[in-house]
Amino acid sequence: MVRFAADITKESIVDVEAVVRKVDPPVKSCSQQDVEMHVERLFVISQAEPRLPLQLDDAVRPEGEDGDENRKPGVTQDTRLDNRVIDLRTTTSQAIFRLQSGVCKLFREILDNKGFVEIQTPKLTPAASEGGAHSFPVSYFNTTAYLAQSPQFYKQMGICGDFDKVFCVGPVFRAENSNTHRHLTEFVGLDIEMAFNYHYHEVIDSIYDTMVQIFKGLRANFQSEIQTVNKQFPSKPFEFWEVPLKLNYTDALVMLRQAGVEIEDEEDLSTPNEKLLGRLVKDLYSTDFFVLDKYPRAVRPFYTMPDPKYHKYSNSFDMFMRGEEILSGSQRIHDAQLLTRSAEHHKIDLEKIKSYIDSFRYGTHPHGGGGIGLERVCMLYLGLHNVRQTSMFPRDPKRLTP
Amino acid sequence: MVRFAADITKESIVDVEAVVRKVDPPVKSCSQQDVEMHVERLFVISQAEPRLPLQLDDAVRPEGEDGDENRKPGVTQDTRLDNRVIDLRTTTSQAIFRLQSGVCKLFREILDNKGFVEIQTPKLTPAASEGGAHSFPVSYFNTTAYLAQSPQFYKQMGICGDFDKVFCVGPVFRAENSNTHRHLTEFVGLDIEMAFNYHYHEVIDSIYDTMVQIFKGLRANFQSEIQTVNKQFPSKPFEFWEVPLKLNYTDALVMLRQAGVEIEDEEDLSTPNEKLLGRLVKDLYSTDFFVLDKYPRAVRPFYTMPDPKYHKYSNSFDMFMRGEEILSGSQRIHDAQLLTRSAEHHKIDLEKIKSYIDSFRYGTHPHGGGGIGLERVCMLYLGLHNVRQTSMFPRDPKRLTP
Repeated sequence: MVRFAADITKESIVDVEAVVRKVDPPVKSCSQQDVEMHVERLFVISQAEPRLPLQLDDAVRPEGEDGDENRKPGVTQDTRLDNRVIDLRTTTSQAIFRLQSGVCKLFREILDNKGFVEIQTPKLTPAASEGGAHSFPVSYFNTTAYLAQSPQFYKQMGICGDFDKVFCVGPVFRAENSNTHRHLTEFVGLDIEMAFNYHYHEVIDSIYDTMVQIFKGLRANFQSEIQTVNKQFPSKPFEFWEVPLKLNYTDALVMLRQAGVEIEDEEDLSTPNEKLLGRLVKDLYSTDFFVLDKYPRAVRPFYTMPDPKYHKYSNSFDMFMRGEEILSGSQRIHDAQLLTRSAEHHKIDLEKIKSYIDSFRYGTHPHGGGGIGLERVCMLYLGLHNVRQTSMFPRDPKRLTP
Repeated sequence: MVRFAADITKESIVDVEAVVRKVDPPVKSCSQQDVEMHVERLFVISQAEPRLPLQLDDAVRPEGEDGDENRKPGVTQDTRLDNRVIDLRTTTSQAIFRLQSGVCKLFREILDNKGFVEIQTPKLTPAASEGGAHSFPVSYFNTTAYLAQSPQFYKQMGICGDFDKVFCVGPVFRAENSNTHRHLTEFVGLDIEMAFNYHYHEVIDSIYDTMVQIFKGLRANFQSEIQTVNKQFPSKPFEFWEVPLKLNYTDALVMLRQAGVEIEDEEDLSTPNEKLLGRLVKDLYSTDFFVLDKYPRAVRPFYTMPDPKYHKYSNSFDMFMRGEEILSGSQRIHDAQLLTRSAEHHKIDLEKIKSYIDSFRYGTHPHGGGGIGLERVCMLYLGLHNVRQTSMFPRDPKRLTP
């Protein structure tokens, strides 16, 4: 039987019938040191091919220093993704995706406790929702549908339909030809929308608190997963404030300019500027998580509520983790006339968003919300550097498989 | 102020500042009889247009008898769906979609307790997965992607990736030109996949128990929602056994033939025959829920594990609620060679499913699973008659809006 067992290929699935016996002295080379199994029968249930496309040992090896002469080979990202079912078996992948399922679970539980209702929104939509570009067209019987770039319009209709506070978890699609470490063409959106009573900061506070509770839940319940990932990809623990740190866009501009950046008042933040801002905030406030509030209207979508006093600015915000955007949100225009004017100003075909605008004609609570990228939250919480590590089957302009 | 208040259009949103005072004698015409509000200030926050596209009173009226002369008008399905944000405000819609969110929550909690891990599967896929027809093509940069008809291949890859037991909740897409009461082109799949130890009935038992716990959870926590829906759409309470009632396909054929149906041994069940079978099972076993096991291979997809003894049959099953299919499941072929032969037999282009077949080359646990249609479960549990009632924004060959 020993010879038979020696011939079983790595990664095969076996059934073992054995007697568990105490051993003395302990087996020092094993993690289970006190007992061993005395095998009586051994069956191969599913035999792996002898040559694996990647070795699990290689796949969990920490990235060595570039100058390290004894550095053993790692596994490239493409090899991992082309053979994802094997890469998923590594301790690191197991930890990442178990933590990811934890984020989803925490997100829903926390919102459920806050009185939110989960809704299901369609991904097939009649028009390229947010202005036109970046939607995937779908051949839909005798017409063309578009994949939803976000569930936002439907979340808002949920609010118009008196659900008061809603959330949804589902795929969102972006037809952007962006080949970066943080863009996917399909990712999972954790979306929130809620009516508020006095001020849209109720929305910010609600989302911020949800994120903080998620971070605390991960720290409390996924410590072994975090440590497993850290073994291969070392990073500093994620720091955050319990109360929202809200910076105004104008404050961010001041900080960036003091650091030597040239930027206009109504200019959007580039990725390098966002990262720099993240480092400046971390130095100043010791947090990896903050809210940037009051974006210029010029850089936000047509449905964003303008600031009532300073018309160049808007009631909109992003949230950042380790200097990267993970959420975009705003108070929405809930008045059909104002929304129509804003859409016209943005040169959006009114006919295409008619049912959306009509939703606001029959009484609507002031409301706001935002959408969180699940893969980015996992990547940044764990201090990883590529969103493909936290997407089980990532999709980008160059990858549609497996 | 009374005149001002009288002029406020129905469905407008108002802010009221008032003093709550005790009243004696009670106000009999109100549901809140002991106190009333003495309004001091009144603001219109969002004014509804004076003419609503549908009246809420009409929208919740029970459907009267056809011969009823005093019958007041209801609201047609299309009017409801064209004006969904108003229709969602009815007590019936509120109850339906709150119950639906309860189904999702129960599904996940129950599986979480059973040790399942939630995974996220891509909807953009490289090939029309299950043979070809009925997939929506998507223009994807310089190539064509297809919307996933089910998350099955990816759930299975999760099993191949050592996750052991997985579930996912997400949209699935069917490009079938079916205009029936129970078909949608996009619906929400509650999907399960699991490795098993001895027999694929472990999978059936696990799914059955999940469904039973959902039914019990709804009965315990959503009684007021169920009663609200019943007021408009009367139906009998949903009955079920706690232990799985499993019938074999051949038993079903005997029952149907005894009832006068002519049907061949390897013929699939038509919708009328499924409904008849549901009535026969209900009469005989007093349950609205049962499993039909061991379908003929001829009517199941290529990845279905054949019965080891009777090669005309397969280790596959459907589950039924009130005589309508809500789940299709099976043991999957986990051997790459057998899977290749089966795909060839079904004339499937092997090149297109290469990454799927390759997943099984490196050791795979025997496994099985199934996919549940969320909207159908809600419809049939509540005894409704159209799946569009339990889809917030339904999609069918003729409807892509709102």
